[in-house]
Formats: sequence, structure tokens, C-alpha cells
Amino acid sequence: MGKKARSPEGQTAASLACEATELSSRAPVFAPGSVWLVGAGPGDPGLLTLHALHALHEADVIVYDALVSKEVLALIPEGTARVIAGKRGGRPSPRQRDISVKLIELANQGKRVVRLKGGDPFVFGRGAEEALALVAAGIAFRVVPGLTAGLGGLEYAGIPLTHRDTNQAVTFITGHMAGGGLPDAVDWQALSRASPALVIYMGRRHITEIASRLIAAGRLGSDPVALIANATLPDQQVIETTLEKCAEAEKKLPPQVPVLIVVGKIVRLRAGLDWLGALEGRLLLADPLDVKRQSEAG
Amino acid sequence: MGKKARSPEGQTAASLACEATELSSRAPVFAPGSVWLVGAGPGDPGLLTLHALHALHEADVIVYDALVSKEVLALIPEGTARVIAGKRGGRPSPRQRDISVKLIELANQGKRVVRLKGGDPFVFGRGAEEALALVAAGIAFRVVPGLTAGLGGLEYAGIPLTHRDTNQAVTFITGHMAGGGLPDAVDWQALSRASPALVIYMGRRHITEIASRLIAAGRLGSDPVALIANATLPDQQVIETTLEKCAEAEKKLPPQVPVLIVVGKIVRLRAGLDWLGALEGRLLLADPLDVKRQSEAG
Repeated sequence: MGKKARSPEGQTAASLACEATELSSRAPVFAPGSVWLVGAGPGDPGLLTLHALHALHEADVIVYDALVSKEVLALIPEGTARVIAGKRGGRPSPRQRDISVKLIELANQGKRVVRLKGGDPFVFGRGAEEALALVAAGIAFRVVPGLTAGLGGLEYAGIPLTHRDTNQAVTFITGHMAGGGLPDAVDWQALSRASPALVIYMGRRHITEIASRLIAAGRLGSDPVALIANATLPDQQVIETTLEKCAEAEKKLPPQVPVLIVVGKIVRLRAGLDWLGALEGRLLLADPLDVKRQSEAG
Repeated sequence: MGKKARSPEGQTAASLACEATELSSRAPVFAPGSVWLVGAGPGDPGLLTLHALHALHEADVIVYDALVSKEVLALIPEGTARVIAGKRGGRPSPRQRDISVKLIELANQGKRVVRLKGGDPFVFGRGAEEALALVAAGIAFRVVPGLTAGLGGLEYAGIPLTHRDTNQAVTFITGHMAGGGLPDAVDWQALSRASPALVIYMGRRHITEIASRLIAAGRLGSDPVALIANATLPDQQVIETTLEKCAEAEKKLPPQVPVLIVVGKIVRLRAGLDWLGALEGRLLLADPLDVKRQSEAG
């Protein structure tokens, strides 16, 4: 036992509650008629920030995306109004302009408006566009950053974004444009050469073309790839595959859920760092990159 | 007013406290003899995740970095043991191996050990190395992702990581190797071409060389740069400058504090999105990139 008195239940929870109360009293004031752009994180409600939880409790109305997990939505107090503004492949979805108009309308009614977005509002979330629309309408706003899926999702899959023996840079890329196509401004050739680790958001639909562009740019077909579906949620699924096989592997994942594509040697570290798998019995390797053997051979 | 009854004080805090209590009872069990690698976020304690707060309250001992803010350290319960394992330019610091040995020793004593790291443990934090050392010693671990400074810091500076009109990719790079030099494996030439937005961690000491390599690779000297010191803390400082002037501008920042270097057109969006500045009276522009004028001219 540690030095602290610790009653089996309750004690810690109670002190955590005290903390939250204190934090709440120090937290920023949510003025009526303003909008907070809040990151909901990748899915696990435990990955919400304290500021985000505070925002959910202070809000009069919450305008949320389809990408926000039901576990996070469950934290919204019962009396709080909710508006869905989500987009989801296939189903009709409100246009970006309509969402901004709605936010402005609610704020002009004097409401405290939370715009709750999956992951982080400023990482492929079009949050900057919404914020600029608020500026144009003269409405005050605040940004509450959230854990983007490229961060939280990789770590729940046991894949570090950086590691001394694999990469000194990591690139987040969107694999899907607003219009639906493969992003035209992404220089896959240069990125493939420049960045040992690539984390591709919303690339599912174009996975075949993304993989072949990366191979054409000089990546090996055998380069490790991880596909992560339902990141950080209880039904998270991770497939370890390769560039040449990933388009085939993607078909094994459930339809209609967001998938992260991770390319690079960092994926091999999962054999050592899959801590969630270890909880269920997976045996972890202390040297997943075979660094020891290689340095002995050298 | 919204639909909810809202007593001026206390009400929200109390319900937030209830929430935290509930979350805590659902939270993962912190087993004695295990280590949790926990991200402390960039500095503002409100950016801590609920899991991280839970971890601080459950831990018997907390091994923390010099990069963890005093505001976050203030959330550690009084009776909990603390060990500093920080590194800070200039001062003697424990070697990486010694930190891992310490974590293993504490866990083998049956303690619940939190390894608290500034930002996120798996983004330039050497967390993967520490976790692999735990695996080698047969010690169970969990990773609690945190907001990396490249995410939280940029957003508190009013700079989005991505925006439709500026970039479909963003790259995080370390500007400093374990040995102290400029990273040898970073291909600045290719990165400069590939990624419109670069976020460079720990690049302060090598800023002159980084800027000249980027210019040599084809970036313009007039390319926008932001330098962010003490990200997300009350004394946060942001300088907007350019590639050719950033090395000179860096000297205006306080010594010994971590500085993020942000390169790319995303920096120009700060004129529209500096919400913290707006709280202090800065007038924001609804069209910071002059998209409207450009499309009219076109």
C-alpha cells in the first residue's frame, strides 16, 4: 500500500469530485451568446479534457457531429438541448454553410452554444471555417482542443507516433476531400519520401489509390500498415497489414465506421506496445524492431 | 436563459463533480505494481484528460518531467510521493536508462506508478522506450494519451493545424536529437516540399539552421512563421514572423522555456482565429487569407 489512506471505493472518487469542483470554479466563463468549439476526442469518454466536460455542463445547446461517440454524448446533462449536425458517408447531411448559420442563429438567441466535434475541431474538422463564420457574424468564440484520433487512436492501438529508432517526423494527412475525391493538393510522392510515418484520416474510400501512389513513390509493398476502426472504443479493431495488402484487409472491417490508416515502421512497435492486447493475454515483445539482433549482426 | 435551472454558482460545479464521480467508478483499475504512462498536456490543467486526472488520484507515486507545468503538478494529491525525472537544457538530468530503472524499481515495490510526461508520452517523449523497458522487466503498463503541444499550443495561439484553403497535411518534427544535434534523419528538403504546414518541437537551439535549410529547399524567406513559448499557460507568448526573420525574433522570447516553431500559411489564419487575443481586445479578421479579394480578382 502507498502512504495514502485509500478506502476500497468512494474515497478516490470523492476526492476526484472535489478536484473537478475546484477546477470548475477556476474554469473559463462561458458567456451567453458565445460559441465554444469543443473537441470530443476519439471516442473513449475518459479522453475528454476537463475543459470539454466543463463546456458540456455549461452549455444551453450542443450542436454535434455524427463522429462524436455515444459514450461522450451520454455525458451531456439531460436538460440540455441537442442538435445533430453530423455528416456520415451515404446519409444526407447538412451543408457546412447551414451548420455555421445554425451556430450563429443560436448564439444570437443568447444561448451558450457548444459545437462538439469528433477528435479535435482544428484537425481536418473544418473548425477553422466555422470559427471564421462566427468572426464574420461578430460572435465571440473559444477553442477547446481535443485528442485527435491520430493521437489517441494510435496509442490505444499500441503504436507510438514517434520513436527514436523509427522516425523523427510524423505527418497527418486527409485522404478525403470535402467534394469526395482524393485530395488534389497532397503531394504523395514527396510525402512518401519525407515522412517515415504517415497517419491518414478518412482514407478508407481511396485506400487502393493511396497505397498504389505510395508504392509508386518508392515505398515498399511490404511496408507495415495498421488499419484502426472505432479507435479507443470498446469495439476498436486493429488490423496489421502491409501497403500491398491493405486494400484487401480493409474489407474485413465493419462498414460505415471511420478508419485510420497508419503507414510506416512505427506499426511494427505494436508487437511490443499493444497494452490493450496485453490486458487480454497478448504476449508483448521487448524488442519488436529486433534492434538488438541487428546491432549484434552489424 | 436556457431550459436548465442554473443557480449562479455551485450548481454546475456540483453536477460536474457527480459526473467525475461516476466516471471514476467506470474508470480502468490501476493495479498495484503497474505503470501508467500519462500525458500531462501542454500546460493548462484544463487540458488534462479525465483519465489523466483519475491516474493522478489513484497513483502511489508520480515520476514527472520538468516539462510538466506547475499548474498540473498542483493537481497531485498531497499525500502522493513525487519523483522528478526531468530534463531541462543546461541542468544535469537523469539519463533515460536511469528513469526506466526507477520506474521498474517502484513497480516492483508494488506501487501504482504514474509516469507523467509533458504533452503526450508517445510524441517526441521517449515514452515508447520507457514502455519497452517495462515490457522487458515484465511490468504491466497502460498509456493515457495527452494533448501534445503541437495540438493544444497551436490552438491556444489561434492557429488551426489544418484548413481547407491552406493544407491537407501537417507534419510534426523534432528539431533536436537526444545527443543535442539537429536530427540527422530528417529530410528537410523533402519535408519542405511535401508538407505545407510544419510544427517543429524543440527546435529553438537550431532555429537558424532549420530556417536556412527550409529556404534552401525552396520555401520563401517571407513564409509565415509563429514562435510559441509557454504554450497554453497564462504567460504564453506568440510571435508572428517569417522564415528569414525567425532566428532574430526567437531572441525576444524568455530563455529556458520550450518554444514551438510553426511554419506555413496556417500561421496567417491567426489574424482571424486568435480567440485568446480577442478576449483582450484584438480585432479579428473574418477573411485572414484574403480569399474573397483573391477570388474577385481571379
